[in-house]
Amino acid sequence: MKNLLPTVMMMEKRGVEVMNDEVKMIDRKEKLVFLSNQSIAYDKLVLAIGSYPIKPNLPGANLQKVYTIVKDATFLAGMFEDVKDCNNFSIIGGGFIGMEMAEEIKKMRPEAAVQIIEMQDHCLKLVYDDDYCALAEAGISEQGIQLLVNEKLEAIVGTKQVEAIRLASGKEIKSDCVIFGIGCLPNTKLAVDAGLDIGPARGIAVNEFMQTSDPSIFACGDCAEKKSFFDSSPSGLRLASIATAEARMVGVNLYQLKRENKGTIGVFSTYLGKKTYAAAGLTAKDAKNKGYDVIIGNAEAINRHPGGMPGAEMLKVRLLFDGKDMHLLGGQVYGAASGGELINVIGALIAKKVTAEEIVLFQAGTHPALTASPVAYQLVNAAEAAMVAHLNR
Amino acid sequence: MKNLLPTVMMMEKRGVEVMNDEVKMIDRKEKLVFLSNQSIAYDKLVLAIGSYPIKPNLPGANLQKVYTIVKDATFLAGMFEDVKDCNNFSIIGGGFIGMEMAEEIKKMRPEAAVQIIEMQDHCLKLVYDDDYCALAEAGISEQGIQLLVNEKLEAIVGTKQVEAIRLASGKEIKSDCVIFGIGCLPNTKLAVDAGLDIGPARGIAVNEFMQTSDPSIFACGDCAEKKSFFDSSPSGLRLASIATAEARMVGVNLYQLKRENKGTIGVFSTYLGKKTYAAAGLTAKDAKNKGYDVIIGNAEAINRHPGGMPGAEMLKVRLLFDGKDMHLLGGQVYGAASGGELINVIGALIAKKVTAEEIVLFQAGTHPALTASPVAYQLVNAAEAAMVAHLNR
Repeated sequence: MKNLLPTVMMMEKRGVEVMNDEVKMIDRKEKLVFLSNQSIAYDKLVLAIGSYPIKPNLPGANLQKVYTIVKDATFLAGMFEDVKDCNNFSIIGGGFIGMEMAEEIKKMRPEAAVQIIEMQDHCLKLVYDDDYCALAEAGISEQGIQLLVNEKLEAIVGTKQVEAIRLASGKEIKSDCVIFGIGCLPNTKLAVDAGLDIGPARGIAVNEFMQTSDPSIFACGDCAEKKSFFDSSPSGLRLASIATAEARMVGVNLYQLKRENKGTIGVFSTYLGKKTYAAAGLTAKDAKNKGYDVIIGNAEAINRHPGGMPGAEMLKVRLLFDGKDMHLLGGQVYGAASGGELINVIGALIAKKVTAEEIVLFQAGTHPALTASPVAYQLVNAAEAAMVAHLNR
Repeated sequence: MKNLLPTVMMMEKRGVEVMNDEVKMIDRKEKLVFLSNQSIAYDKLVLAIGSYPIKPNLPGANLQKVYTIVKDATFLAGMFEDVKDCNNFSIIGGGFIGMEMAEEIKKMRPEAAVQIIEMQDHCLKLVYDDDYCALAEAGISEQGIQLLVNEKLEAIVGTKQVEAIRLASGKEIKSDCVIFGIGCLPNTKLAVDAGLDIGPARGIAVNEFMQTSDPSIFACGDCAEKKSFFDSSPSGLRLASIATAEARMVGVNLYQLKRENKGTIGVFSTYLGKKTYAAAGLTAKDAKNKGYDVIIGNAEAINRHPGGMPGAEMLKVRLLFDGKDMHLLGGQVYGAASGGELINVIGALIAKKVTAEEIVLFQAGTHPALTASPVAYQLVNAAEAAMVAHLNR
């Protein structure tokens, strides 16, 4: 695996010995980990073994030029090399991975046909409300990428190499490359073999301190079971933002059980067609499903003031509140690149259960070259709009 | 006054009658406001009459081509027209206004000499710690603007028009234009004439609901007295972020005394030489002066990952905590434009008295094209660094 980030070097600098090997087995009774040619004793063990991309068990799924995406520079470089002469790319799944991959391929091969096949009625549906999904879809379509929603893949057709895909609707689409971006599943084999418990969302079960069913063994990141911040229900979210927060819990809890996991909020961002798409917490649909009486506030403004300033771009913000006490449940951001930080304001405010009233009274810093004006500042105005919506019910 | 923002139009759209006239007097007994040719009765009155820039009473201060800056497009266009052939610009005061003005003038007239005269040992000293001030100073110097710190203006020399400035150190600097950016004072004349109380920071005294000493009259924005969020001491801060938050309090309190002013945090941002400079809350020196045992955490990283991504820029973050319980007191940001939103994360976290531990456990969203990597995310890492500093004391 090639990692473009200087992680190993950073670890070694801090006195961590990094070994590149495979763990074959964990012996919990003897507290031993077996590698290819040796075993290592442990007092505490951390499983941070990630997840693997899902490839459905469909006809033709193992044909040549059918890929799943792993975060490995060597693999990606090899894949791009292998498909550089393909003319018909089918991307299965319109989540972040599928959308980003479609855009990268279209940039690399502008003359090729690139299509995204999405089972639901919208792309990015898990993190965005429908109208925000539509913004992302328009941005992707503008780049000449075709979107097929409400379409389910039934089979991949070909003899040695992929030649087409067949959809449940009967459509057949010529394809010389198929890429899956339909999510991932926790890596649990080692844990299962060691007799550790597995949770309802298929991750390695952990308590609030990230201990597995064996208190000497911790798990964090994509391999560990997740619970929602909002109602502690099992969560399928697997994100770097969650993994790194969990790792910071485990790092301390190895020494003293101090840092408690309050559950996953889900903070996402991506950048497609030079626009930011970001979300945190619950969508309106999620919130309704969890029994909340959702109040929504929207605001949009140019990220400069006056709007004629160089670099001016639209920045839209939606905030979702619990109608009972008007605390923040979720937020969505679209537009200017500064949205990548703005979503972290929203994530932090969700974590702190801040109310619309508190947001309205925030002293938000603004500057002509950096943000909307103080009277148009989107975060504050979306909260104000939600308060008005709450009053006018 | 020309306002480039569509404020009046927005007001009229919402049914507010906007009159362009001058208030000559308030008759509190009769509840009347006297304009040029008429009087208007009121039940509740809001004073939102702003501040005026300070021009010191020094020899030569009234010579031609000596300016203070008011936020009025007509005035600014006229001033720039008047000084377009000047060759030696002296800017008095190295705060945000002085720094921004120096940069604008240097852009307009690259061949002219532009110098900033600052009384303190650093520019932006009110909002930044010394090393962050030094970053801003280097950015300004790189543009060919000369900085003179520890220098006090003593007189402006000239017969009809300014010809030079004389400093307390004895230096004389050739100047055919002098611009003051040394702060502003609340507009209180109307309030004083009406017998309303004035506060120790020279603003119109207000209670926590923004009522003046006459409960039918409210004041907000630059004209109103300010108190610090941290210790309720009188505050000289006058910022759009504070003014608009206060206006949102008054807007509701006119109908029902509901929104309480918790005091000024002070959230600033500016953009000089294509770098963001932003700050919120207390500097290390402020915090020490207020009796806090300050713990500082620093982090810096490129705002992309890997760092070779297009658009990669440095983003530095400093967080300051109260050593007693490690709650957040202040923050400083330097570098990439997304810092203009990041400072609002910090401002919100100060308002919510969030601790370093809570920040460390935030699920911060990151994306290769928008932010540092999840392991390098500056806000979280600055909090972690502060926790380490706290442990190692």
